[in-house]
Amino acid sequence: MNKRIMRPRYNAFTVARATLSRLHHRRILTAPNPSEGFDFICYMASKAKSINKALNDAVPLGTNPLVLKIREAMRFSLLSNGKRVRPVLCLAACELVGGHESTAMAAACAVEMIHASSLIQDDLPCMDDECLRRGKPTNHKIFGEDVAILTADAFISLAVTHTVAATSENVPPARVLRAVTEMMKAVGTDGLVAGQAADLEGERMRLEENNMGLEHLEFTHVHKTAALLEAAAVMGGILGGGCDEEIERLRSYARCVGLMFQVVDDVLDVTKSSKELGKTTGRDLIAGKLTYPRVMGVEKSREYAEKLNREAWEHLRGFDQDKVAPLLSLADYIVSRQN
Amino acid sequence: MNKRIMRPRYNAFTVARATLSRLHHRRILTAPNPSEGFDFICYMASKAKSINKALNDAVPLGTNPLVLKIREAMRFSLLSNGKRVRPVLCLAACELVGGHESTAMAAACAVEMIHASSLIQDDLPCMDDECLRRGKPTNHKIFGEDVAILTADAFISLAVTHTVAATSENVPPARVLRAVTEMMKAVGTDGLVAGQAADLEGERMRLEENNMGLEHLEFTHVHKTAALLEAAAVMGGILGGGCDEEIERLRSYARCVGLMFQVVDDVLDVTKSSKELGKTTGRDLIAGKLTYPRVMGVEKSREYAEKLNREAWEHLRGFDQDKVAPLLSLADYIVSRQN
Repeated sequence: MNKRIMRPRYNAFTVARATLSRLHHRRILTAPNPSEGFDFICYMASKAKSINKALNDAVPLGTNPLVLKIREAMRFSLLSNGKRVRPVLCLAACELVGGHESTAMAAACAVEMIHASSLIQDDLPCMDDECLRRGKPTNHKIFGEDVAILTADAFISLAVTHTVAATSENVPPARVLRAVTEMMKAVGTDGLVAGQAADLEGERMRLEENNMGLEHLEFTHVHKTAALLEAAAVMGGILGGGCDEEIERLRSYARCVGLMFQVVDDVLDVTKSSKELGKTTGRDLIAGKLTYPRVMGVEKSREYAEKLNREAWEHLRGFDQDKVAPLLSLADYIVSRQN
Repeated sequence: MNKRIMRPRYNAFTVARATLSRLHHRRILTAPNPSEGFDFICYMASKAKSINKALNDAVPLGTNPLVLKIREAMRFSLLSNGKRVRPVLCLAACELVGGHESTAMAAACAVEMIHASSLIQDDLPCMDDECLRRGKPTNHKIFGEDVAILTADAFISLAVTHTVAATSENVPPARVLRAVTEMMKAVGTDGLVAGQAADLEGERMRLEENNMGLEHLEFTHVHKTAALLEAAAVMGGILGGGCDEEIERLRSYARCVGLMFQVVDDVLDVTKSSKELGKTTGRDLIAGKLTYPRVMGVEKSREYAEKLNREAWEHLRGFDQDKVAPLLSLADYIVSRQN
């Protein structure tokens, strides 16, 4: 095997190159690097292709004119050019515990639906009032607020029914039920709802840069971002047939990755342009919103992201090296992403 | 046993007394009446009491200040003085197939949560823009639109996790999964979302009183109202351990009751005052909204409701007379309700 080292941080990497290089170096010195020689770009592209096809099949336009607009709005948000981080995480977790991609594909699509649902809601005028998302107008700008809100509901419903329908033949009902419960926990007051509520509350309070601020920020992001990434990984582990210990290690890994994801997001918001990200940037700063760069500065935020990445790797130590490579590379990809 | 005949149509009944009396008479002449001698008022009050307690326990305020507002908003909408028709239906269906009340109580609470969620959304400014519900200000009027939208999500999530948590010890996972799937189908594009989308579309189109209008109206109400009542009954049947045939008969019964519920709702909107209903009335008429009285007139609408009631009864023919009495009386109660 002569796979090239293609981890994304060696491609589009500009910002934290030096720090990450040190981190990479440290890893190589202390332990063999399981993601070494793994072609992550190729892996990610191949998974994204399968996921996009599955998402397209999961939401047909149908023939009923009375729900056509909802279906169009669902397809508009779901089939836009997202990074598919959550579904890839789900599939990679499933494969890590010995499951086949097809076993977790419905769940992978489901978490992307939940993600799409939460983005539609976050963008509403009464929430973050965004008009740009992934380089296109936001859902409510095109379909209207009423349709956007119903579309968000439709996604939550479909996420459950789609997962159940697609797994019922191959996965024991107890496992499907456990997976669905994980997903729905990530939606409510233990997940996205709590995160968005805390986010809105934080904006209202315009907290100062102190410890209370950091606690609030951590709560917001653990719930707003990490919870669904956690559900994605855990669902993959459950449906793939993982044992409890494997599932819990996937959970710990995903929590780190999820928080890291948001720290990086906050950094990108102050260091990148709207064009580069495909969404309005700098708004957090203008709104005086609590973010990691605001609380601890850009450089310390990057260091924190790297620390979380190391912890994420640590949680997966001891798994089969070939099987763990995608998840480790995914963590690297998230910490070094540029959009 | 000397139970008094206390069906509600003999109490608060004023509008369609003559017609319903004929219907009742016809039943008595053709077959023994299983709801005869059943004290429905007492039954409903007792069930509502258990349900209200269970609902109160299902949504504790909790200690986290960052989600406190969401919890308050959930409790505000969930614990208001609703009629609890859906949860009673769920419990009665469970008991009909031989299950105990406690087996289906979580599901009964869950359908009420879904109902509360849909009411919160329907009332939003971008939907029906209501400021009054059950005699109190609507959720968004008190907590703001952002919190109201998150509260609606939180209910959908909790409906699933609560049902799973409360049934996992006593009900086989395959049945719990089936029940949860029924509930989530009732939320999405096969249920509430489709109904509300069609309702909004109908308002936009301001259809004339023709056959196309009636078809549209039927689609709207089957999805907006009947789907969740159907899920309530079917969930009760599934969790109570019913066989497929029993569950399907419960489904057919509930579809009739659900559509009938909405026909009666439309009639009440034009014949009752806001004070009597605890919500703004006459708005459908003013908005030129498609309703049964508008399409077929008040009298024909009442006749249609009675026809649906007869059909509902028919679907439950052959069940044990004592066990079926609550569901038959519930149908009678809905057709004759005054608020």
